[in-house]
Amino acid sequence: MTATLPPPRALTRHDPGTIAAWDADHVIHPWESMGEEVTDRVVAAKAEGIHLYNAEGRRFIDGPGGMWCMQIGYGRREMADAIAEQAMKLAYHSPWAFASEPSALLARKLAQMTPGDLNSVFFTTGGSSAVDTALRFAQFYNNLRGRPEKKLFLARERGYHGSTYLAASVTGKDRWKNPMDVERRLVRFLPDINPYHRAPGQSEADWCDEKVEDLARAIRVEGADTIAAFIAEPILASGGVIVPPEGYLRRCAELCRAHDILFIADEVVTGFGRLGHWFASEAVFGVVPDIITCAKGLTSGYVPLGAAIISDRLIAEISGEDRAEVLFKNGYTYSGHPVCCAAALTSIEIIEREGLLEHVRRVAPHFQARLRDLARHEIVGDVRGMGLLGCVEGTARPDLPEERRFAIDQHFGELVDAACEARGLIVRPLLNMCVFSPPLIISEGEIDEMFDILDAAIGEVQGEML
Amino acid sequence: MTATLPPPRALTRHDPGTIAAWDADHVIHPWESMGEEVTDRVVAAKAEGIHLYNAEGRRFIDGPGGMWCMQIGYGRREMADAIAEQAMKLAYHSPWAFASEPSALLARKLAQMTPGDLNSVFFTTGGSSAVDTALRFAQFYNNLRGRPEKKLFLARERGYHGSTYLAASVTGKDRWKNPMDVERRLVRFLPDINPYHRAPGQSEADWCDEKVEDLARAIRVEGADTIAAFIAEPILASGGVIVPPEGYLRRCAELCRAHDILFIADEVVTGFGRLGHWFASEAVFGVVPDIITCAKGLTSGYVPLGAAIISDRLIAEISGEDRAEVLFKNGYTYSGHPVCCAAALTSIEIIEREGLLEHVRRVAPHFQARLRDLARHEIVGDVRGMGLLGCVEGTARPDLPEERRFAIDQHFGELVDAACEARGLIVRPLLNMCVFSPPLIISEGEIDEMFDILDAAIGEVQGEML
Repeated sequence: MTATLPPPRALTRHDPGTIAAWDADHVIHPWESMGEEVTDRVVAAKAEGIHLYNAEGRRFIDGPGGMWCMQIGYGRREMADAIAEQAMKLAYHSPWAFASEPSALLARKLAQMTPGDLNSVFFTTGGSSAVDTALRFAQFYNNLRGRPEKKLFLARERGYHGSTYLAASVTGKDRWKNPMDVERRLVRFLPDINPYHRAPGQSEADWCDEKVEDLARAIRVEGADTIAAFIAEPILASGGVIVPPEGYLRRCAELCRAHDILFIADEVVTGFGRLGHWFASEAVFGVVPDIITCAKGLTSGYVPLGAAIISDRLIAEISGEDRAEVLFKNGYTYSGHPVCCAAALTSIEIIEREGLLEHVRRVAPHFQARLRDLARHEIVGDVRGMGLLGCVEGTARPDLPEERRFAIDQHFGELVDAACEARGLIVRPLLNMCVFSPPLIISEGEIDEMFDILDAAIGEVQGEML
Repeated sequence: MTATLPPPRALTRHDPGTIAAWDADHVIHPWESMGEEVTDRVVAAKAEGIHLYNAEGRRFIDGPGGMWCMQIGYGRREMADAIAEQAMKLAYHSPWAFASEPSALLARKLAQMTPGDLNSVFFTTGGSSAVDTALRFAQFYNNLRGRPEKKLFLARERGYHGSTYLAASVTGKDRWKNPMDVERRLVRFLPDINPYHRAPGQSEADWCDEKVEDLARAIRVEGADTIAAFIAEPILASGGVIVPPEGYLRRCAELCRAHDILFIADEVVTGFGRLGHWFASEAVFGVVPDIITCAKGLTSGYVPLGAAIISDRLIAEISGEDRAEVLFKNGYTYSGHPVCCAAALTSIEIIEREGLLEHVRRVAPHFQARLRDLARHEIVGDVRGMGLLGCVEGTARPDLPEERRFAIDQHFGELVDAACEARGLIVRPLLNMCVFSPPLIISEGEIDEMFDILDAAIGEVQGEML
């Protein structure tokens, strides 16, 4: 007789089914359909290194790195200790009334990391509020410069900048048939910049000219004196890891500078090592923005924190004698939260000490080579990425039956995700795409494991669908 | 010869002067004037119980309780341990993809605490994003109910609801000569409800009738079919701890219900025991709102977290077969953050175990009696409060010289704050007011200590100013 093994001990105090039921009853998740009772949602219970465990103890490689935010890996004792130590010492102070060591040190550190004279840091609670703050600063800046009509924001199709009302208003994803209100009067969108969508035979250089001309045209049509800022992710992340054509960002920044339009680089995803540098704007794309927004990797996601980092030049231009007139009336109870800033300082210290920026630069070519190799599957229309960012986009042959093509267009991501999950990897499905951005600590061997699974999963989906 | 004492050991790793200088160079604080270099900001270094310590080790009673957020007191080992334990176990998971124990348990707990059928919780990163979410939900709700023209928000003069663009738009404080943009087209403001400002001889009941009529008139003028929601703090906190006249909130809620206008109770300050109850809407004011927003006391400020808690009825009214059509496209990377939810669960557990709601109900009469007693100072125009919320408002005799009256109107709060600080108490100055909301754990003896200091400080300011 074989010995009966005890049932696996759940990693949660309550039964996973009970947790899933309470979750279904009481939690409204982001982008959830109203009234839909998802009772079989996977219960995440534990995470360590690059791995996430469900409540039953099954282990998965965390392909999306949380939500583009996990840099140093899960379960770091040093992070837990630093957070606990700060919570014991000074769990909170009003940022209106006081300064403190964690926020002062972190702001100084960020000023050193950012290019140019981006030396002034406004702390927020995450990416959305960082973008909201940056846009409100651009409005405030133009009011104080005596040009209240210079208020339009230029943004891009497929850009994602968050979900406060204002951050959602400059988000170019999902703008059609949207039951959500946004402020359309303040925003103009530039067309898709995805090189994958250029005309057959068009060179990437031609595509770049065309995309820069889109910006130039918008400035001509609207008039530079009506435009406050251009906001852009260096790589459009949630829009499907869209890498701009060579030279595009630099030329856009030059156009903006020439027309006195602020250039806001939304580095919520590209910051803190995702592309092998603290920030990508200058190091990767040769651009010195007027404002950089960041969040996510800033604390490796351990606690919420965001920041808008602003050029000293802008602040000098609007400084004035009358304190009341130059008051930036914006801020959060949790601006510069000491526990969150302590977590960020520790995450940065770990990235420095373990050389994770260098590590990313070292392993990224292998990551990108393995990603490129997936293009040999017929169902894969495009693969793209940079650093430890990747996307696989499915495509349906035109000769396939209509319903099959629809299924690939709408569900390729989900199908691959499911096939990956069965093999121990989580990816993030987005309609016909899967995106991934694993923890920066991932080793070359683990990159291989990840792409071996993706390869097999895509093969399986292709076998079913083609 | 007296022995030379060693210099007091600073509570910070860096010299406090250096921290203050880095802070001045690199941190933009909330509501900071551009270009103003505040190099002598107090460096908060440590906090324990109801006390805050500056970097030189001087101790102060924390009158404002952080920023209306510190309920259980600073330096709680249990909180630090719970936060660290969760950071080790599962520091983060995507709220899009997964459920987890902390957010499911906390959402269920909040559903039990809230009145009526407010059983569905949307987690955010703080009060601003909770309000932003509640307002966006009201827009979404009316779009799905097929009445996209029902979109106005009614709010109130002196109300404060946060500082995302949309939350700032419903904020009634500081609306004049404001260099910040807000969305005026979506909002109508009802006049000041402060009973202190009623006509001489007018009864509070008459004042209440007048204030309810303000709402009724706005509904008549704008038309109920154009109004989405009425948003109100049960007690207007940052506006100066304005306690509404008896019956006001209940009658407002009834008017809203009669006109199919959502009633959003912004309980960011009044929630989690500040008035001796988990939430004040029903327990104190007899109102069951459609949505409650909360933050601050939810985690006792140890880490950022907010929530919009929504009535099941509303969700049922917009649930639909087509998942894509009823998708609430709103959410944050840090929605339902496991570390923040674990902190909230622990803070709630401490409030329960130590009977802090009962404690507040027990000591509040003494707190309010000592507050009322300050009215005997001639320079005090009004004192008001409820639970562990208080405000002292300075007033200048009409016969004083113009510049003296101006000084009292603009700086009474600062002057009292400075005189309190010299005696070991921090209060929060707001022009001619001081507001306070100490940690809920404050004892009767400490309440006496606090008001003894306030009493002496007000006496000193009066001596200088009158």
